[in-house]
Amino acid sequence: MNASNTTDSAAERAQDFVNNARLQSSIAALAAFGGRDDGGVSRETLTPIDLAARRHLIDYARSLGCEVMIDDCANLFFRRSGKTEQSPVLTGSHADTQPIGGKLDGAYGVLAGLEVIAALNDAGISTIRPIEVVAWTNEEGSRFGPGTMGSSAFVTPSLLTSYRQSVDKDGIVMGDALDAALKEVPDVPRRAMAEPMDAYVELHIEQGPVLERANAALGVVTGIQSVLWYRVVCTGMAAHAGTTPMNERSDAMAAAVAIASQLYARAEQEAASNMRLTLGRWHVSPNSINTIPGEVEFTIDVRCVDASVLVRFERFLQDLTTQHAWRGRIVFETLFRREPTIFPQDMRDLIDIACTRATQAAQRGLPQHLTSGAFHDAMYLADHCPTGMIFVPSKDGISHNAAEETAPADLTLGVQALAYTIVELANR
Amino acid sequence: MNASNTTDSAAERAQDFVNNARLQSSIAALAAFGGRDDGGVSRETLTPIDLAARRHLIDYARSLGCEVMIDDCANLFFRRSGKTEQSPVLTGSHADTQPIGGKLDGAYGVLAGLEVIAALNDAGISTIRPIEVVAWTNEEGSRFGPGTMGSSAFVTPSLLTSYRQSVDKDGIVMGDALDAALKEVPDVPRRAMAEPMDAYVELHIEQGPVLERANAALGVVTGIQSVLWYRVVCTGMAAHAGTTPMNERSDAMAAAVAIASQLYARAEQEAASNMRLTLGRWHVSPNSINTIPGEVEFTIDVRCVDASVLVRFERFLQDLTTQHAWRGRIVFETLFRREPTIFPQDMRDLIDIACTRATQAAQRGLPQHLTSGAFHDAMYLADHCPTGMIFVPSKDGISHNAAEETAPADLTLGVQALAYTIVELANR
Repeated sequence: MNASNTTDSAAERAQDFVNNARLQSSIAALAAFGGRDDGGVSRETLTPIDLAARRHLIDYARSLGCEVMIDDCANLFFRRSGKTEQSPVLTGSHADTQPIGGKLDGAYGVLAGLEVIAALNDAGISTIRPIEVVAWTNEEGSRFGPGTMGSSAFVTPSLLTSYRQSVDKDGIVMGDALDAALKEVPDVPRRAMAEPMDAYVELHIEQGPVLERANAALGVVTGIQSVLWYRVVCTGMAAHAGTTPMNERSDAMAAAVAIASQLYARAEQEAASNMRLTLGRWHVSPNSINTIPGEVEFTIDVRCVDASVLVRFERFLQDLTTQHAWRGRIVFETLFRREPTIFPQDMRDLIDIACTRATQAAQRGLPQHLTSGAFHDAMYLADHCPTGMIFVPSKDGISHNAAEETAPADLTLGVQALAYTIVELANR
Repeated sequence: MNASNTTDSAAERAQDFVNNARLQSSIAALAAFGGRDDGGVSRETLTPIDLAARRHLIDYARSLGCEVMIDDCANLFFRRSGKTEQSPVLTGSHADTQPIGGKLDGAYGVLAGLEVIAALNDAGISTIRPIEVVAWTNEEGSRFGPGTMGSSAFVTPSLLTSYRQSVDKDGIVMGDALDAALKEVPDVPRRAMAEPMDAYVELHIEQGPVLERANAALGVVTGIQSVLWYRVVCTGMAAHAGTTPMNERSDAMAAAVAIASQLYARAEQEAASNMRLTLGRWHVSPNSINTIPGEVEFTIDVRCVDASVLVRFERFLQDLTTQHAWRGRIVFETLFRREPTIFPQDMRDLIDIACTRATQAAQRGLPQHLTSGAFHDAMYLADHCPTGMIFVPSKDGISHNAAEETAPADLTLGVQALAYTIVELANR
């Protein structure tokens, strides 16, 4: 730390005031809400444990001098005033988890933002623009679909009407859960959706193995992969496994395996373009050991930074399903389509400077530039204001799992890079 | 009908006295127990509706002058005395159905036996040996596993101990259901298991398309295919579909599809040996659209009349699973193994004569000789006494379905062939 060096910029001083011990303790404190014996966290959105965690965050933010606000989608905003009332610089992430998640996915980004505010307080730094930290509602989408609900509704408020209709497995309607969450915080004033933001920077664990493999402590995220989700339905005829000769069959599983096999082969052909193909969800009917499957449904998740690869993929899928010769029927439909997100070059440049300074001080290698394979709230914010993302490594690439882990030193480097970036943006 | 021609043999006269109208009405009467609006029947083993159907059968058999007996597995025997006390000729099938089955699978064979007795009564024929009609308990195995419980326990009574432990989806124990069924018929004396039988002949619908395609009204069953059931488990590593590069994956579904694809290709290579391959039951974990499957389990049902084909198949499966190159693990285990059943040539010859006489009188083509792809109670009886089977066609090859159907004329031809066969055997 060279905080006493008064020739350093505010961004540099903010970076150097990030406090590793305080960061670790704030992560541990939030992880206690829904904490599991195996080190994981179960804190699905808008559950009682999530509401308690929200109250904890409100109290912590206020202890740092923040003003707290909430919007109609229960997104929580913690605001540190600037010297002006110009549009704020926003950082943060989400505090909800998968049914069984870790203590870092989402939570880290929210607590990193609050640590930046604490560091600014310690360093006595005032910024021109206000700085806001956000905890988006329901990024995971595991309880109420779809995911990234809070951030997408903030950017496009008209989405909220349909989101409120979502129902969880216990029959609880999202709108009711939302109203209950809002009623829990009568002391927190409402803020409008879609308010102008000067910039958004999200710090997150990578959830993949790229940084770890490269032995890089920090990653500059260049964008988020394009994603296509399909459902393929093969409809044949269920029949007795023993009595039906092979040439009389209309076996939906044989058709599905043939299609799947060619899709995997296609992914190998596209290895150079780094296309990612997952056939994750299968439903076989009647799913009986001695009955020929009459219907097989499976999903395709295909992602690539290069959208043209996905255009080619869809054409391939179209040809494959229409040309497959058998007695049955194959149809596919698009479930979800998201064009690639490319973060602006000036945001990437600024984040690269911030990461480079942090990693050099720690005698670690240069930051790695990479695309995000996962969705993030930043995907929607990129439609609203200049947006960027910083990644820290995930041990063994694991997330959505109690075993999710990142070295504490890397977590601190991530917050240092965030602090630098935020202060630079807030003083522009 | 030429019943007045006194130069005909007893077998010929029995055949000619089979009464189509009475047969149809007895099929309709039994189908009313568990009858559905769609023409199907829901009469799973030892349910209240099955117990009511059993009482109906007891009453009907007694009205034909039969003595009724029951054994420890609740198999019901309807006995028509012979001129001697030599071991009886047995016919019959089962009266239980799949959760949603048809009115013929099983029931037809039981009612055909009773129709033979009615025809013998009408024709005033006495046979040397007694003739017994059996309704085996729980052939289907859908409520309590395994199937063909009654016939296998009759032949091997020691099996009953483990069968009694079987539990249905509502937690009802097979042994308790069995005791309740026995208590329902205090008027029916108990008979020993494994009693000697002179021969067993079972008449059944084909449950496949072979006879219909050949336009044959009757089939002489040469044997029952050998069957192997396996479970294959591919264990990889569940991971995020977006963040995990293709070359870092241990995708259990990609492995399972590769294995399945080669198994289907193998079945094509074995087309000449008429091997039948079904990959019917699949379980994918975690089965989420955006998660790489961490574990995929699927079943293999493979059948062939030629047991050596299945020996080759198992060696192929062994090589395939051990040689598949990936990061994960593939294991397979045998769930069930049944060697082929070959019915004795003299039983097939006799049945061929019986079928030929019936079809010629009806100006239909010669009976077709074929193997059974499905299991039948006859499979176990073949270990107990000389056994044979007669098939009638299944419309569109459909069974285990409300749409199960056979032309009434063909049903009558089947009972005619059965009558001839039974009387010839009973007078040996």
